[in-house]
Amino acid sequence: MIRIFVTGGTFDKEYNELTGALSFKDTHLPEMLRLGRCRIGVAIETLMMIDSLEMTDADRAVIVERCRQAAESRILITHGTDTMVETARTLAETMVREKTIVLTGAMIPYAFGSSDGLFNLGSALSFVQALPPGVYVAMNGRCFEWDQVRKNRESGVFESI
Amino acid sequence: MIRIFVTGGTFDKEYNELTGALSFKDTHLPEMLRLGRCRIGVAIETLMMIDSLEMTDADRAVIVERCRQAAESRILITHGTDTMVETARTLAETMVREKTIVLTGAMIPYAFGSSDGLFNLGSALSFVQALPPGVYVAMNGRCFEWDQVRKNRESGVFESI
Amino acid sequence: MIRIFVTGGTFDKEYNELTGALSFKDTHLPEMLRLGRCRIGVAIETLMMIDSLEMTDADRAVIVERCRQAAESRILITHGTDTMVETARTLAETMVREKTIVLTGAMIPYAFGSSDGLFNLGSALSFVQALPPGVYVAMNGRCFEWDQVRKNRESGVFESI
Amino acid sequence: MIRIFVTGGTFDKEYNELTGALSFKDTHLPEMLRLGRCRIGVAIETLMMIDSLEMTDADRAVIVERCRQAAESRILITHGTDTMVETARTLAETMVREKTIVLTGAMIPYAFGSSDGLFNLGSALSFVQALPPGVYVAMNGRCFEWDQVRKNRESGVFESI
Repeated sequence: MIRIFVTGGTFDKEYNELTGALSFKDTHLPEMLRLGRCRIGVAIETLMMIDSLEMTDADRAVIVERCRQAAESRILITHGTDTMVETARTLAETMVREKTIVLTGAMIPYAFGSSDGLFNLGSALSFVQALPPGVYVAMNGRCFEWDQVRKNRESGVFESI
Repeated sequence: MIRIFVTGGTFDKEYNELTGALSFKDTHLPEMLRLGRCRIGVAIETLMMIDSLEMTDADRAVIVERCRQAAESRILITHGTDTMVETARTLAETMVREKTIVLTGAMIPYAFGSSDGLFNLGSALSFVQALPPGVYVAMNGRCFEWDQVRKNRESGVFESI
Repeated sequence: MIRIFVTGGTFDKEYNELTGALSFKDTHLPEMLRLGRCRIGVAIETLMMIDSLEMTDADRAVIVERCRQAAESRILITHGTDTMVETARTLAETMVREKTIVLTGAMIPYAFGSSDGLFNLGSALSFVQALPPGVYVAMNGRCFEWDQVRKNRESGVFESI
Repeated sequence: MIRIFVTGGTFDKEYNELTGALSFKDTHLPEMLRLGRCRIGVAIETLMMIDSLEMTDADRAVIVERCRQAAESRILITHGTDTMVETARTLAETMVREKTIVLTGAMIPYAFGSSDGLFNLGSALSFVQALPPGVYVAMNGRCFEWDQVRKNRESGVFESI
């Protein structure tokens, strides 16, 4: 059984046709897992639905606490890409290291057709099953340890440091 | 660097609008990797473009031989789902076991919008990076050792045996 | 109020993931009208779900009879492209000419993502509202009178004769 | 031959994956016409790429002038929905009435998968061919004369007045 914590991010953004703005409604995770015909047991829980640029220390404390309390030893977190690495560091520095935690996200909202979200979800769900305890970021088909990655803001790509 | 061998299967089927039939043209792998913003080094090679129900022993011998010759120690094979397990067995029984080989496919053609292909590709590419040498089938978000899986023809789902 | 008669055709074909074959289930018309945010009053009725190459004289007699009986004076018929012109001729030769009847279809199934179906539906629904009584074929953004059109089998395009 | 003037609007908005904002690049009209297998002769010209809430009197004067100068007697204008009716009124009040001008747009960007854009384009292209001279708004599968329509901001639907 894998625990999935949803925190928002580009992954789950939608287009509001009345206001013309991007916003959050419900997570697309269940629909994406159906599309991927995923048969792993997962328990999905939405912790927050926010842009990761707006994520506060208090929000991160919630994420840490929920990861700590989770009965599952394998945890996937969907997260905005802008501060994904920062949340990974917070988790690594405050968590006991007996769990495998993988953070992932998307550059294009899933609802927008040409999204990398489904690829990233398949990738992150696989890494979280296969890797030993630790905190990781899974993006661009790769998996980085939390202290060996940064998002390149010019290219939109996650790279090793 | 990961070697990707394309053999066809539902993954790459297209709709021929002049004949109204399903057929193969080129593989969609490069386009899918672009969509997933994949930054792993991959070398894609099309070995054949066939329905896996039509795959012969000679075809499987080609796949085995190309896996043996490949310089890369991590190999992903896209394959029709109907005989994917049979090809996995052939590879396991004839290959020296120093390589990680993952077979994957799709239940719905990638070109048809509601495909599981992108999810499966992200999943398989991750398992092939993370797992020790061996021959595996990655479907439905799971990864099975070659001799512990079968496709359930009624449900279309891969399951443990 | 516009009457829509569904007869099948590429428009409504789906991919059966268990058999790997193309087949019919329910029509996609209601979903397509929702996507198009269509606000015209329509009454949709499925007369048959067949490939138009398999349409018999008896099937065409049903279509003629239902068009004749319909209370609405504006009728849209979704139809396979291969014999669309033949059905149009049957309608023109047997119907009293007080109704506007437009036949349309698709070269790619709506369910396959890159379909011309939504464009054709928007087009046909508009022509059926705007044109005087007669029998027409609406394809490729154009509208042809029933006796001035043929499908070019090599190009898949409807053209004037 | 139909003249198509592009002015921007939701129709052509895209998601900028580096900034996370909606913005304009090139128009999707050629791609949409290809998808619709449209075989009407069209000449596409981009006059501006703006949100219709930002359209000024000077912008509208450009549109009027280009419609006046156009050699074609049938003109389609893609336009943001918020002030589409206002531009239609400007055209109706300042143009000599010998041309058929149809304005259309979309509630969801074409690039976002679940768009009404392709349906609306098929609809508008058909009305512009079939209707007598005048200025019209084609949305929701309907076609309204310029002085008999308003956009309902609560429902996002165009309705008769």
